[in-house]
Amino acid sequence: MSDYSYHVDGEIVPAENATVSVRDRGFMYGDAAFETLRAYGGAVFAWDAHEARLRNTCDLLGFAEAVPDDLRERVQATLDANDLDDAYVRLSVSRGVQPGKLTPDPDVDPTVVVLVNDLPRGGVEGTTPWDDPAVVQTVKTRRTPDAATPAAAKTHNYLNGIRARLELRRAETDDFRADEALLRTFDDAVAEGATSNVFFVDSGVLKTPSEDCDILPGVTRDVVMDLAREEEFPVEPGRYEVSDLRDADEAFLTNTTWEIRPIASVDGIAVGTGPMTKLLSRLFDERVERRHYE
Amino acid sequence: MSDYSYHVDGEIVPAENATVSVRDRGFMYGDAAFETLRAYGGAVFAWDAHEARLRNTCDLLGFAEAVPDDLRERVQATLDANDLDDAYVRLSVSRGVQPGKLTPDPDVDPTVVVLVNDLPRGGVEGTTPWDDPAVVQTVKTRRTPDAATPAAAKTHNYLNGIRARLELRRAETDDFRADEALLRTFDDAVAEGATSNVFFVDSGVLKTPSEDCDILPGVTRDVVMDLAREEEFPVEPGRYEVSDLRDADEAFLTNTTWEIRPIASVDGIAVGTGPMTKLLSRLFDERVERRHYE
Repeated sequence: MSDYSYHVDGEIVPAENATVSVRDRGFMYGDAAFETLRAYGGAVFAWDAHEARLRNTCDLLGFAEAVPDDLRERVQATLDANDLDDAYVRLSVSRGVQPGKLTPDPDVDPTVVVLVNDLPRGGVEGTTPWDDPAVVQTVKTRRTPDAATPAAAKTHNYLNGIRARLELRRAETDDFRADEALLRTFDDAVAEGATSNVFFVDSGVLKTPSEDCDILPGVTRDVVMDLAREEEFPVEPGRYEVSDLRDADEAFLTNTTWEIRPIASVDGIAVGTGPMTKLLSRLFDERVERRHYE
Repeated sequence: MSDYSYHVDGEIVPAENATVSVRDRGFMYGDAAFETLRAYGGAVFAWDAHEARLRNTCDLLGFAEAVPDDLRERVQATLDANDLDDAYVRLSVSRGVQPGKLTPDPDVDPTVVVLVNDLPRGGVEGTTPWDDPAVVQTVKTRRTPDAATPAAAKTHNYLNGIRARLELRRAETDDFRADEALLRTFDDAVAEGATSNVFFVDSGVLKTPSEDCDILPGVTRDVVMDLAREEEFPVEPGRYEVSDLRDADEAFLTNTTWEIRPIASVDGIAVGTGPMTKLLSRLFDERVERRHYE
C-alpha cells in the first residue's frame, strides 16, 4: 500500500484508511467522473482544462450542480500534505451513496477523492515517464460508441480500455510486448489508445482522430494542437484508418502521464519519430517549464 | 445508512464500516463482476445459475481463477448475520487493489462484497416487489455493443443503463413517469431494459431478444423460458423491433427483483398482460415455493 495520504470527502487520510462505502455508486456502478493530472514544480498543469472536462463529465452524468467549488484546493492540499512537487494526481467525483436503485436520485452528496503519487518531472531538464517509444497494436475491442455512453465523459466505467489492454496481455510473448492498444470505432476509423490520443504526420500535416470518432478529447491533445497551430503547422482532425497511421511519416501518443510519446510501430510496422514530433515535444517541455501553467 | 451488516473481504461488518479502498479497481474503473440474487424463505434462488454467470463474468474480465470457492457460504453467512429470510442480495467480486496502471496485473487478490436488504417474499402467497405493471419507454441511449464490452458480463460498468434511466428521469412530468427504459442495439433491434429482459407474446408464441442482440442473459429469463417449454409453449428467441413489442398481445419484463412484471405500455401504446403472462407468473411463484431451489 502507498505511504501517501489521500483526500477523501474533505479529509486528508493515510492511504490505508482511504476508503469509500461499498454502497458508493462509484463502486457499485462506476458512476463517477475522474481526471488524471500532473503537478510540475508544485503546480498542477492545465488545471482549467481538466476542471472544465471534469465538470462536463459530471454534467453528462446529471450531477454537475453537486460538484463542490473547492476541487483545486483539495488537490493542492493533498500535494502539500505529501510534500509532493512533481506528481501524478487522480481526482474523482462520484455520485455517492444513494437509495438502492439504479435510477439516480437528483439529491446528490458526491464523494470526492484525490489520490497522488510521485512522478518524476518532465520538462526540458526532466526525464520522460516512459522508457521507449510505444509499440502500438490494433485490438479487436472497439471503442464504446457515444450513443452507448458519452465519449466525452471520463468516467469510472473503464472496462472498454481494460478489455483492450487484456488483449495485449494475452498476446504477449518473450519476443513481443505492446505498450498501447489501438481502438477503432465500429466503422473502422482510428479512435484512440486505451489511455491515450493518437497523432500522426503525413506530408507535413499533423493529423488526429476528430471528436466525432468517439474519442475522449484529451487535455494534452488540445495542448499539442495549440502548439502546432502556434507554429503554423497545418492540423487536420478527421476520420482516419489504421493504414493511414501505419503509413505515416511520424506518429505519437499523448496523455497527461506520457505527455508526448513517439510511436515505434503499429501492428509490427515501424513508424517512429521525426522532426515534427521532436519539435512539439520540445515546445511541450517549454510550456511545462513556465511557472504559470494556464 | 442501512442497519444491516455486510460481508466485506471475509468479514461481517456493520454497513457503516463496509468499505473498499479508493484504490480498489472496482471503484477506480468499475473493474468488477456482480450478481443480484434473492433469498426466499432463507434459501438463495437459482444459486447455481447466478454463480455460473458470475464466474463467467470474471472469466471475461480475466480473473476467473482468483474467485474464491466459498461465495455461497459468504452469502449465507450474511443472511444469517442479519436474520434475513426474504432478501435482496448483491454479490460483487472486484479485481481488488493493484499497482497503479490500467493494464491488469495477473496476480489478483479480489475484493468480495455481499450487501443485503430486506425484500418481501414473492411466491404464491407473497406480494410483488412492484406496485403496477411497467410503463416502458424506448430511449435514445443504445445498448453497449458486445465488441466494446462483453454483453454477457454483468459488471460494475453500469453507466449505459444509468444514462438510459436518466433519459426517463428527464422526461418525467406530473402526468408521465416511465418505470423502465428500453434499449435497442445499434441496428435497431430490441435489446433489453436497463435492468431487465423483455418478453412478449405474439399469436401464442413467446418471443424474447436472442443472445446475439447484446443482451445480458438473465437468470430469470432462463427460468421463464424453461417454464414455457415445460408447458410446451413455443419459445422463439430472435431479433425483434420495437414495433413488434408495441403490437404484441401481451408483454412482460423479467429480472431477479421484479421476477415477472407485466408491461402496461410501450412508448404510450397499451400492451398489458394476458393468459400466458399470468400462467408463467403462477408457475414462477410455484417454483419459488419449492423448498429445494436448484
